[in-house]
Amino acid sequence: MASAQPFTENSENIDVSDYMALVGRQARAAATDLSAATTQVKNQALLGIADAIAVQADSIRQANSKDMAAGRQNGLDAALLDRLELTDGRIEAMIDGLRQVVALADPVGEISDLAYKPSGIQVGRMRVPLGVIGMIYESRPNVTIDAAALCLKSGNAAILRGGSESLHSNLALARCVADGLQAAGLPATAVQVVSTRDRAAVGEMLAMRGVIDVIIPRGGKSLVERVSEDARVPVIKHLDGNCHTYIDDSADAEMAIAISVNAKTHRYGVCNAMESLLVAETVAPSLLPRLAEPLLAAGVELRGCERSCQLVPAMSSASDSDWDEEYLAPVLSVKVVAGVDEAIRHIAAHGSGHTDVIVTEHLGRAQQFLRQVDSSSVMVNASSRFADGYEYGLGAEIGISTDRLHARGPVGLEGLTSQKYVVLGEGQVRGG
Amino acid sequence: MASAQPFTENSENIDVSDYMALVGRQARAAATDLSAATTQVKNQALLGIADAIAVQADSIRQANSKDMAAGRQNGLDAALLDRLELTDGRIEAMIDGLRQVVALADPVGEISDLAYKPSGIQVGRMRVPLGVIGMIYESRPNVTIDAAALCLKSGNAAILRGGSESLHSNLALARCVADGLQAAGLPATAVQVVSTRDRAAVGEMLAMRGVIDVIIPRGGKSLVERVSEDARVPVIKHLDGNCHTYIDDSADAEMAIAISVNAKTHRYGVCNAMESLLVAETVAPSLLPRLAEPLLAAGVELRGCERSCQLVPAMSSASDSDWDEEYLAPVLSVKVVAGVDEAIRHIAAHGSGHTDVIVTEHLGRAQQFLRQVDSSSVMVNASSRFADGYEYGLGAEIGISTDRLHARGPVGLEGLTSQKYVVLGEGQVRGG
Repeated sequence: MASAQPFTENSENIDVSDYMALVGRQARAAATDLSAATTQVKNQALLGIADAIAVQADSIRQANSKDMAAGRQNGLDAALLDRLELTDGRIEAMIDGLRQVVALADPVGEISDLAYKPSGIQVGRMRVPLGVIGMIYESRPNVTIDAAALCLKSGNAAILRGGSESLHSNLALARCVADGLQAAGLPATAVQVVSTRDRAAVGEMLAMRGVIDVIIPRGGKSLVERVSEDARVPVIKHLDGNCHTYIDDSADAEMAIAISVNAKTHRYGVCNAMESLLVAETVAPSLLPRLAEPLLAAGVELRGCERSCQLVPAMSSASDSDWDEEYLAPVLSVKVVAGVDEAIRHIAAHGSGHTDVIVTEHLGRAQQFLRQVDSSSVMVNASSRFADGYEYGLGAEIGISTDRLHARGPVGLEGLTSQKYVVLGEGQVRGG
Repeated sequence: MASAQPFTENSENIDVSDYMALVGRQARAAATDLSAATTQVKNQALLGIADAIAVQADSIRQANSKDMAAGRQNGLDAALLDRLELTDGRIEAMIDGLRQVVALADPVGEISDLAYKPSGIQVGRMRVPLGVIGMIYESRPNVTIDAAALCLKSGNAAILRGGSESLHSNLALARCVADGLQAAGLPATAVQVVSTRDRAAVGEMLAMRGVIDVIIPRGGKSLVERVSEDARVPVIKHLDGNCHTYIDDSADAEMAIAISVNAKTHRYGVCNAMESLLVAETVAPSLLPRLAEPLLAAGVELRGCERSCQLVPAMSSASDSDWDEEYLAPVLSVKVVAGVDEAIRHIAAHGSGHTDVIVTEHLGRAQQFLRQVDSSSVMVNASSRFADGYEYGLGAEIGISTDRLHARGPVGLEGLTSQKYVVLGEGQVRGG
């Protein structure tokens, strides 16, 4: 039987399976308390966590220094070390983030669609927490606080498993979370950081059917694929963002250029950046050369179909695999298409169901594109960069779902809840 | 490579894995057409199926006779044979059911919550089909038509695998479905009945990640458990209904009796029947004997806690396992509890998350029960028998979900859809 030493690394001789079973039981028990917690109490806990982070900032930095030193010693590359580091700015951002979540409306208990039915009963739907949420993420300790805040506000217990390189940092943050929870009278086990480096803990989480209600992996595509491949628990997953912009022949040319340049060059390494540009053949001769100019000036490499290369000699030839690529880099594939039908077919064949855009002034084609493109966000005349929880007004997001079931697109507090039916009667019984 | 012979039983030498891969590819291709189909076209297909069933009623009856004869020969019990039989009444009911689904509002394409955001973009959510739905059910051929109708109206392609004892009946019905689809210009492969008796087909379905978006098992608890245990595809599952009625000390006594008697005796073999009665200790002495009378008169066996047995000598002693039992029979477990808190704890410990009821005139306790009981339907002052898609105004249901993710409670057309984000801009690009 594992002992509960949540804020120090578990020694290697504790059986991982026993330890995770304990974590699971504690989470389920805490989930019941948390689902009944009032908005006021949950907000008090969030503010308590923020205060604890401020007060314990020194020990958080010390713990993070240990992780950073070990990371350097183990040869982590610069990008990983950057994500691992808790700078003063990041600590401040975690505190701000917690305060922002306090300001969000509590979705739990909201009753909608309450209406009388022919039998005289009133039937409606009440938002309720999912229960226990498992998060599996890379060595980015600020995710620990982001995830804790959103799970807590939505009334869910959480089991958090960050990358093992960030364990000291995560355990220092876990202490702050526990302090905040306890100060508000909530069980400290409502948010548990898995305190072993043993990778078997991930396997245990993926198999905890009936204990964990949903797992949200956050990280690169290979992590997400591995988690969804192995999970016996439902997963809300975010795979790649191969986002398209289709420029229709009725598009406003200036708008098409502004949107395309923004969608490609605003940030390169993000999932809602444009990776593929489709242009209607009637406007391609006039538009593509004008469009290529600012993209090339920004240092974007253009890989085009045969027709595109004829129109813009600075393009290189796209290979078949380019149409499926999420570059996350200053590279763009470009294709001339006959019109909206071919654009929709191309997106269905090569897109990743993340975010796709049409630029058009033609109402019917806008409607057709909105309806027929099977992506989590479909846009008319706007940059794909807007596909984001904050821009959509969710306040914060725990991830972006490219799944079809439960939640699609940015997942905020509402995505961490579901709805049960509530029935209000005055003694009705069923006849017949 | 399997040939496509959808209306005759596949001979045993066809490789099941190849055959199911073909079925999957056809379903995915059809899903794209179906998601774009207008309400009018889908309704035309539904009416076409109804017409085809009416016209082909003789061959449906002949096919069903073959199944019935084989079933008798193989010693199926009377209950199974009853479910297998397509009487004239059931054929008429299938036709009526199709017409009722025509009359339901089409959820697909509905845009909700469309609102301007600070950047000037409008963000809303559009209902879209899930894609491909897999149904695994027992030898009840009328489920084939129910499922086909709901999947079709909600814009989903369907792969239907009914019990092998009903294969001839299902293939005869599949022909009607295909005729209706084709008459409306939709691909006949939008609804496919798996035409092999080989049980390996079920295993293939459960593993079709990326092809089948969700599997809905319909049948007894063992079928549902087996499917959810083995599935690598998301499952909307309906396990047991161990439904409680809690009678609070503030309850109207007549109402409490009427609701309890209805919930227990209206029908015994259904998942929303009451299986366990909880009574507040202050009212138990006056109420329990009065309540026992009509229940005993109806032939219900009462199994009580110690206190209940003292109050009603006709009760037998409940064993520990009685509290967890879904009897589906004229049996009821009865327990005296201290009050609403104990009732909620008892339901959390022993309930199945299906439907639970409080009878009370106390507003605060009604609110507490509604909020804290973690079941797909929670009711105040109404019979649990109302937990039903028709009574809730869904029009029809494909099942009742006791899951937490995606859909809880009766699943109608809306439960077969999800929502994607739609963004309408006027050329906005992202700054900062």
